Parts: sequence; C-alpha cells; structure tokens
Amino acid sequence: MKKYAFGVDIGGTACKIGLFDLAGSLLEKWEIKTDTGNNGKNVLEKVAASLQDKMKEKSISIEELQGIGMGLPGTVDRQGYFECPNLNWKHVCASHDLSALMGGVNVQAINDANAAALGEYCYGSGKGYQDMVMVTLGTGVGGGIILGGRMIAGAHNAGGEIGNIVVNPNETEECCSGPKGCLEQYASATGLVQMTKKYLEKEHPETVLDHMEISAKNVFDAYKSGDKAATEIVHQFTDILGKGLSRVSCVVDPEIFVIGGGVSKAGQPLLDLVQKSFLTEIPEACDSTVFALATLGNDAGMYGAVQSVLE
Amino acid sequence: MKKYAFGVDIGGTACKIGLFDLAGSLLEKWEIKTDTGNNGKNVLEKVAASLQDKMKEKSISIEELQGIGMGLPGTVDRQGYFECPNLNWKHVCASHDLSALMGGVNVQAINDANAAALGEYCYGSGKGYQDMVMVTLGTGVGGGIILGGRMIAGAHNAGGEIGNIVVNPNETEECCSGPKGCLEQYASATGLVQMTKKYLEKEHPETVLDHMEISAKNVFDAYKSGDKAATEIVHQFTDILGKGLSRVSCVVDPEIFVIGGGVSKAGQPLLDLVQKSFLTEIPEACDSTVFALATLGNDAGMYGAVQSVLE
Repeated sequence: MKKYAFGVDIGGTACKIGLFDLAGSLLEKWEIKTDTGNNGKNVLEKVAASLQDKMKEKSISIEELQGIGMGLPGTVDRQGYFECPNLNWKHVCASHDLSALMGGVNVQAINDANAAALGEYCYGSGKGYQDMVMVTLGTGVGGGIILGGRMIAGAHNAGGEIGNIVVNPNETEECCSGPKGCLEQYASATGLVQMTKKYLEKEHPETVLDHMEISAKNVFDAYKSGDKAATEIVHQFTDILGKGLSRVSCVVDPEIFVIGGGVSKAGQPLLDLVQKSFLTEIPEACDSTVFALATLGNDAGMYGAVQSVLE
Repeated sequence: MKKYAFGVDIGGTACKIGLFDLAGSLLEKWEIKTDTGNNGKNVLEKVAASLQDKMKEKSISIEELQGIGMGLPGTVDRQGYFECPNLNWKHVCASHDLSALMGGVNVQAINDANAAALGEYCYGSGKGYQDMVMVTLGTGVGGGIILGGRMIAGAHNAGGEIGNIVVNPNETEECCSGPKGCLEQYASATGLVQMTKKYLEKEHPETVLDHMEISAKNVFDAYKSGDKAATEIVHQFTDILGKGLSRVSCVVDPEIFVIGGGVSKAGQPLLDLVQKSFLTEIPEACDSTVFALATLGNDAGMYGAVQSVLE
C-alpha cells in the first residue's frame, strides 16, 4: 500500500529533501550538503543514503513508497540524460541511477526551473490556474511555462528560456549569458546592479545609493523610502521586465505570471510596476492577466519534484 | 457506419468546402460565395444548403457523416461563441447553429488561423513534427502554435498572436493594428510596402522599384533579379522577421516554423534569410530549428477544420 513520496531538489551546494504523503502534503523537510566528489558520482549516493536513513527512522518500507521526484540544476535531453556542470555531470541518467540505488522505486527527474514552476503551479500561487508562466528573477532570469497542466519544455529544451528574449536591439554591450540586449541583461539581480552602477556614473540626483554597496535589495529599499534616483532606476527595471513579459503573452497568453526568485522579495510594488508596463504593449484581451508573487520560496523545487511522481 | 466529413473554411468573401474520407483524404472541393446578409444569419444557412446539395448528389446519408469542421474569421470565447466582424456576427455559437441546420451532426468550429495551422500540422509541412509554429505573412502577421498536438489558444485567445510582439521599441509611428513597433508593422505584406516606400523616399541606389507599383511580390521579384535597393529592403525585412521568430523560440522552442501566406510565395530565398537572422539571437541548442514553407496554400484552413472532427 503506497503512502509516501520524496521530493528532492538538488542544487550545486545543497539538496533540499521533503517527505510527502500522497495528497502532496509536506510531512518533514531537511537538507544535506551536495557532495560532487568522485566525478559527481557521490551526489546520488548521498541522497539515497539520506532517504534510506529517513525511511528507517520512520519505519517506512520500500513498498509504501510511491516514488521519488527529483529536480536537477541542468539540462536534460529527450532520452532523460542530464548535463549538470555544477554537479560534475555529463550524460547522467539520474532517474535510472537513483532508482537502482533505491531498490527499483519509480524515480522522475526534471530540470530544477521546471520543478519550481510545477511546484508553484500545483501548490503555490499558480494553484487553480490552467496556464501559468513562472518567472524567476535571481542571478539570471529563468522561466517555466505550464499550459493546461503540461510543461512546455521545447524541442531543444529551450522552452521557457524567456531570459534570452531580446528586448533592446540597440544594446552595444555583451551579455554574459544570452544574446546582446536580452531580458536577462537587465531584469535579473545582476542586471539591476549593473543598471544602477551605470546610472550612478552619470549626473544624478543625490541618493543614498552613493554611499552603500549596490545590491538589488538596497536599490528596492531606497525606492521604498522615496529616493528619487532609486525610483528612476526601479522604473527602468520594471519597464523592461513588463515589456519583456508582454512578448511572452503574445506567444502563449497565460492566465497568470508568477514572479519568484530573490528580486521578487521587493514584493507588491514590483508587481504593480511590472504590470503597468506590461499593459502598454499587450492586446486589450490580455488586460486581465494576473500577476502574483511566488509563495513557496526555496521549497518550490521540492514540491514540483514530488508532483512529478504523484500525478 | 461513418464514412465522410466536411471541412469548411469560411472567409469574408468566400467559403471553401471540402468533402473528406475519415482518413483525411480530400475527395472533392468547391467554393461558394459568403452571404453575410440578414445580419449574418445567411452565412450558415447557405453553407448548410451547399453541404446538403453535395450529400444528395453523392447519395451520402446523415448517418454516414462523421461531422463538420469549420474555420471562422474571428475570435471565439471559452464558451464557443464567435465574434466575426467580417460576417456581421456578434456572439454566435456557430457550432450549435450549423449542427441544428444539419440534423444534429457533430460540428466543431475553430478560429481560421488556428485551422490553417492545424491543416499544415496534420497534412502539410508540419506533418511528422510534434511542436510547430505556423507564421502567416499576409496583410498582417498571423500565428498558430501547436505543441504536442495541442493548439495553444491562450487564456484570452491571444495565444500565437505573434504579430503583436514588439521588435522595435524605438518606433515612433503608430501601427494600424498592434502596438507601436510590433512585428506586424514590418513583417507583413503591408509592412514591406511601407518599408519600401520609406526607403525610396531617401537617397538610394537606382532601382526598378522607382518605376513600378510597390507590392510585396514586386519587391521580391526585384530582389531575385539582383536589384541592389530591393536587396537592402529584403534584408531589412527578413532581419526583423527572423529576430521576431527568435523571440518566439525563447518562449515555446518549436521544432519547426512553417511560413505561409501571400509573402511566403517569395520561397526559399525568404526562408534562408529569415533563418540566418533567427540564428543570431537564439541559444545554440535551437540551431537545428527547421524552417519550411507552407504547402497547402489556401486549402490549409479546410484541412485543419476537418481535422477537428476526425480526431
């Protein structure tokens, strides 16, 4: 009789693990360090050991385990092989390997950005919506698109890579990851810091930002305190992001955008400004598109991962 | 015993009708004029009369009819009601109304752009691919997206409206349909004519285009004959289109783009230039994205319409 499932979100430094019941309720969560030693072979062995310890502790038998869902920081091909530079992995069939370590139990492995999107879709802000685009504003700009319950992975696993959308064709500086002038170059934490530094190099109103370390958080804090320079910078940032998301709506027209990642801690003011900019470049029919903050935070990946074995 | 199905593509001036077997083979096709009289009420009555005439001629009974698929030039809401200005229709449940006229047979009604996409997906250039984006370059720029066999209609029926994607944020002139600087403003037949006129207003190399009516066909013909000015204009046109499609790939990452509509008659040179521009702004993984010309021409809508009752 199946009773439990594990959700595992493997990152470059830590693995978040959750024990769930089959209704998707989190019973317990913990973390272990990611061990990338032995050419990455240790990663799954340590995860398996941790799962087995928990099963022993809780007296859970392998027969009671519905499966293990796993989110991984890398790309997966159509045959299920992962490439994860952060884990020292090239061409690893993670689902097969973890299953072998866990007595043949069902294991599903998906990309971590997709896992986070699936988590928000099933348990977070996307719950109750059919068509969702998840936008993760962190070091970069990530995306995950779920339409009618189906993840849009794309023919070359580039589905939802909305950070690569060029929003400024006139950009002259290179972007470190995507093409010149792409959304990620501006709408990420890194982009905001860059944008702020450039702004401060030119003549500008007196600002608290002149006297502190530039970070996304500091810029938004200054904005919230009414700082004029920070207001201009934040408006520039949200203008680009809102217009970038309007491009996404012209393709898949979601019901809801869920905004997560570190920058989303700026909260409702961020959402409001992004939506305002979004509305300037969208067909009228899309005016009712919902903008919401992600609610699961760092647990989203774990929730999404487990969902892949609960369906 | 079901043996036949009809595919009907209703346009503002003519209705294209096809009789198909259940394997989707076209047995016969014909056209009737679209009669928008009587506040649009005549449209379906005339279609029904034409279908009944054909059934009588071929001795097809209503029991042998699997269904009727219909493509319509307008938007449909989630309840199936159509708004079609060209047909004088507001809030018409076309599938119900035609079914009532045809003895209760199964009728499916879909948007005509989606019907054309579905036609190419099942019977044309998209056949054999899972994930396709159809791009129709006519008076405007239309799109239809099919992923894993599923049409991406969008939460507000704006899915696949790729003509609305802003590609030139610096545009100062209004677009007649979409937002300022949108793909449709440049990459349509209308856009190409506008672009050519602007080019000719400025100093430019001697060109045959100075002495003829400006049309998409004439510009491409001049390009093919090596005309220098036409070459510059066509490169500008395909550059914008290719980069616009790269934005689409960053969202849904299709296996194939199928290019149809009047402008696509420019053929392989158009495809090659569009693909070249596309490749400059796309993640490496998408390099193998296929570009193909639509093959069903004006029959695509009829094929796609019938498919909706054959599945």
